[in-house]
Amino acid sequence: MSLTISEIKAARDLIAPYIVHTPLLRMKNLDPYLGCEVYVKAECMQTTGAFKLRGAMNRILSLSEKELQRGIVAASSGNHGKAVTYACKMLGVRATIVLPDTVAKIKEDAIRKWGAEIVKCDVSERFEVADRLCRERNSTLVPPFNDEAIMAGQGTAGLEIMEQCPELNKVIVPTSGGGLIGGLSVAIKSVSPGTAVFGAEPAALPRYSASLRAGKPVLVEKRRTVADALVTQIPGTVCFPYVAQYTDGFADVDEAYILRGMKLLLMEGKLLCEPSSATCIGAVLQGLIPVKQTDKVCFFVSGGSVSLEQLHQLDSIEIGHLD
Amino acid sequence: MSLTISEIKAARDLIAPYIVHTPLLRMKNLDPYLGCEVYVKAECMQTTGAFKLRGAMNRILSLSEKELQRGIVAASSGNHGKAVTYACKMLGVRATIVLPDTVAKIKEDAIRKWGAEIVKCDVSERFEVADRLCRERNSTLVPPFNDEAIMAGQGTAGLEIMEQCPELNKVIVPTSGGGLIGGLSVAIKSVSPGTAVFGAEPAALPRYSASLRAGKPVLVEKRRTVADALVTQIPGTVCFPYVAQYTDGFADVDEAYILRGMKLLLMEGKLLCEPSSATCIGAVLQGLIPVKQTDKVCFFVSGGSVSLEQLHQLDSIEIGHLD
Repeated sequence: MSLTISEIKAARDLIAPYIVHTPLLRMKNLDPYLGCEVYVKAECMQTTGAFKLRGAMNRILSLSEKELQRGIVAASSGNHGKAVTYACKMLGVRATIVLPDTVAKIKEDAIRKWGAEIVKCDVSERFEVADRLCRERNSTLVPPFNDEAIMAGQGTAGLEIMEQCPELNKVIVPTSGGGLIGGLSVAIKSVSPGTAVFGAEPAALPRYSASLRAGKPVLVEKRRTVADALVTQIPGTVCFPYVAQYTDGFADVDEAYILRGMKLLLMEGKLLCEPSSATCIGAVLQGLIPVKQTDKVCFFVSGGSVSLEQLHQLDSIEIGHLD
Repeated sequence: MSLTISEIKAARDLIAPYIVHTPLLRMKNLDPYLGCEVYVKAECMQTTGAFKLRGAMNRILSLSEKELQRGIVAASSGNHGKAVTYACKMLGVRATIVLPDTVAKIKEDAIRKWGAEIVKCDVSERFEVADRLCRERNSTLVPPFNDEAIMAGQGTAGLEIMEQCPELNKVIVPTSGGGLIGGLSVAIKSVSPGTAVFGAEPAALPRYSASLRAGKPVLVEKRRTVADALVTQIPGTVCFPYVAQYTDGFADVDEAYILRGMKLLLMEGKLLCEPSSATCIGAVLQGLIPVKQTDKVCFFVSGGSVSLEQLHQLDSIEIGHLD
């Protein structure tokens, strides 16, 4: 556990030219629905559509000139793959992205558009293929979360929100492997020890709740969830100790509440997020994280990778009633 | 023409406790699509979902205690009706809203929810009915745009954007009767004479383009448009002279470009607006307002009153390609 606020501040300076300083939006219109003072960190407005660029950029910028010349490999069809591809394009570095055969054409096109080489394989083999490519080419693998340089990059968003509103007393963060909440919680607790940090994960895949109870990373059963960016089955071994030490609780959010959160943010907050990001709002709608009217609560809206077609699943969702 | 920056500054102080200081969002992700530095004034995040609360609140707060006791009347099923209803609720004043028989239930419910009395009539008679109610009850009519106190209220958004980014050199404003662009342009030209102000209206209802050519308010033919908040057929007589004096040009935007602008803002900017508000983005997409890469352009996103069902009309729209 060597990640501290120093690495996160260094990451902030390093990645500053490449990322968007996203707004922290005070959304008064949502207060009556969520029962607190609502602040939304709009990482859905980040370049490449998600916070992932912060960590990927920090990891890649920490490589030597020689390592950069030998290229980067990543295995992800989602926000991480987009972030690595974009970072490499910005830096003039060769990127190879390993995608499953089943990848949606729109995602493949976005990655190809930014100039990455694409290697396809069966979904079960993608990490193996990525490792083999790295060995063959002497390239560097950029992992999605289980790495302290990645966590330091994600943590920069924590510095930002506490500068944007130092009075925040609760921050709720969508969680999968733990790279985001790990880095964020180190940053937040360093500058504001009194601010509580909560994780929100799909009830279908409660890997952190289960692991924190067990005191070690636990593998949960593979299940489907609308939160398609939060499907890791086990916490990262590097991330877990930080999450165990620096966070204040976890909420396991039902699918219906995730979609309600997404619809509430869109229709009343006017902000489009991906289902995974709405997990933090769903956690409060479902009553899993207690909040008071005077609480200043930051909902960390991690990304906006969603198609117009996916919005149709919100048609039949009820946001819920005001008091 | 007695409206000056003084009245707008006074309006700002008067309405400050009741309105949201909406963000001016720097949307780098949209720069490649629009060919300039993109700033979005997010009045879709205003209380009641549109800028209209600014003008309505200023008009109502300028009434005497006696006038307030005798109640307020307005004729609008849209953003103006919602704004008047909400303002009256905040101030404990009786509101009567005249609605057409054909009003959508969702709009009627929203107005009733905030405690307004509803009077229904044929759409062609609504202004007559509103006038009669005012005479019978000695109440005050709050008009939607053709009034200097309304314009002063809307103008407060102009002060805000120039404080939020004093370097803005172009501002593009969706236009119907002219209350918004009238007030905004007085404010902007007073504090920053070098900033150009453009209006954007549906090509189906080009009342300002036609009127500015004629040098006086001209009635245009009634036609359908997706921009359902921009359907006034003739400029307001009070608004017109301000618009003629203080604005730098008008764009008549095709329906397809309005919808493209809306889809671009939603899918790439992650912000939900109503079709009318996307007229300003459509104007640049269609090439009607020339912009340079170094221009700092504010797109005034006036409101977000749109249903999820209405988003389905975006399914088949192409945003357009990047260079």
